Amino acid sequence: MRDLSRDNRYLSINTATFGGQWDLTRIVDGLGRHGIPGISPWRDQVQALGLRESVRLVKDHGLVVTGLCRGGMFTALDRAGLAKALDDNRRAVDEAAALGARCLVLVVGGLIPHSRDVIAARALVREGIAALLPHARAAGVPLAIEPLHPMYAADRACINTLAQANDICDELGEGMGVAIDVYHTWWDPALAAEIARAGKGGRILAFHISDWLVPTTDLLYDRGMMGDGVIDLPGLRSLVEENGFDGFCEVEIFSRDNWWKRPPDEILATVSERFRTVC
Amino acid sequence: MRDLSRDNRYLSINTATFGGQWDLTRIVDGLGRHGIPGISPWRDQVQALGLRESVRLVKDHGLVVTGLCRGGMFTALDRAGLAKALDDNRRAVDEAAALGARCLVLVVGGLIPHSRDVIAARALVREGIAALLPHARAAGVPLAIEPLHPMYAADRACINTLAQANDICDELGEGMGVAIDVYHTWWDPALAAEIARAGKGGRILAFHISDWLVPTTDLLYDRGMMGDGVIDLPGLRSLVEENGFDGFCEVEIFSRDNWWKRPPDEILATVSERFRTVC
Repeated sequence: MRDLSRDNRYLSINTATFGGQWDLTRIVDGLGRHGIPGISPWRDQVQALGLRESVRLVKDHGLVVTGLCRGGMFTALDRAGLAKALDDNRRAVDEAAALGARCLVLVVGGLIPHSRDVIAARALVREGIAALLPHARAAGVPLAIEPLHPMYAADRACINTLAQANDICDELGEGMGVAIDVYHTWWDPALAAEIARAGKGGRILAFHISDWLVPTTDLLYDRGMMGDGVIDLPGLRSLVEENGFDGFCEVEIFSRDNWWKRPPDEILATVSERFRTVC
Repeated sequence: MRDLSRDNRYLSINTATFGGQWDLTRIVDGLGRHGIPGISPWRDQVQALGLRESVRLVKDHGLVVTGLCRGGMFTALDRAGLAKALDDNRRAVDEAAALGARCLVLVVGGLIPHSRDVIAARALVREGIAALLPHARAAGVPLAIEPLHPMYAADRACINTLAQANDICDELGEGMGVAIDVYHTWWDPALAAEIARAGKGGRILAFHISDWLVPTTDLLYDRGMMGDGVIDLPGLRSLVEENGFDGFCEVEIFSRDNWWKRPPDEILATVSERFRTVC
């Protein structure tokens, strides 16, 4: 297991962690001030600055783009709307390629509108990923399925366990992988076995960290800073590292009533400190 | 699959559905007015009235006690506190026996205090259930492990899938079963297979219904009335019935800002109507 205590070498920040207080330019400046070498931007922030300018910015600052957030949402319209979702996903692949992102993170989408059929939703997701994959392979962008916590099954992602994501990777093969987020997966009784399975296939493309607060007051916007909750962060990191992951730990904290109200420099200082001490 | 549209023959109400507006006596009167034959009381309501009087009340009204809520919480103290938790669980078994309850529902408890080790919590739960089982067998009270939604893994129940519950049943055998709540389990990709597994062992002791709202605004207190959410209720009911369940559908709705603010007679009328039309 790697020693993180000495520097920020393996630290990346997902830009959602600032809650929209900073645009991409200010975020990149902030990462520079705090010596943080990795970034995972959201597409809306890249688009706000412009793709070409965003590429220049991250390259000029020598940042590693640990992932682009996000593709997916294959079920957001319906079966007939899949083509439109795929168009947008292909653009996301192109943006990821331009940024040199290590993967395109897929948040796959929840139930199909006006449907209660989670099995049909899962089938549509599988179909969408399969249809996207040739374009991603051609662009050299690995697709990282991110299983989301089951509390998001209805409205965000019907892939809720690492086992499901691994199943799709097995089926579709080359170019597929997973993003393992401790917030979404820590509770899963099959987690160790499925991390080993993902590792065997060389499929662990991203590792996201935050914490689960007790109590959690909001389903979406109450994630905790590492160390403030109940997730065994070193335990989970050792699992992914034992199974071949040597990439960045990407911090992604949705925290509307706490961290998003604090100065971004305070967020970055706290992230750096917690990264070295509790992760 | 049974036809529910004609009467309330298979309908039971969990007393939490009234949000504390009525005591047990008023609830039983209400069930009588609405022609609802099943009840699943919480222990605090039974204790408030007194066990002997509660037994008399449900028997006088010819109610079927589809479950007693609840035993469990084996991890609430710590390893050293298990004996105390077991004492309380044995009293719960005795109350269930006196009431003629079809099962004692076990909400097993979350993480051990000051611990982030979910595997240790699960081991302690298994140990607690094993220690309780002889008393339950002697009293003739089946123990129903209720897997709770993964969003309760930290603070309420670290048994979060039907697979986990089935594993414990396999291990401990006679006298063990499961309570399947659609709210907790609808998202589970292994649900159909695990319902079949539970059915084969004759282990489906209870079937709880409500609905998953989109959006859900609170982790604990925002369950929906059947039909107001996205759960495929007939689909899940058909799964349990195809696998041998012929008991009651028990309605359990925690809804602080909606149903708990409505007159209990309106709740009961709505439950009856939805039971016959959307379940």
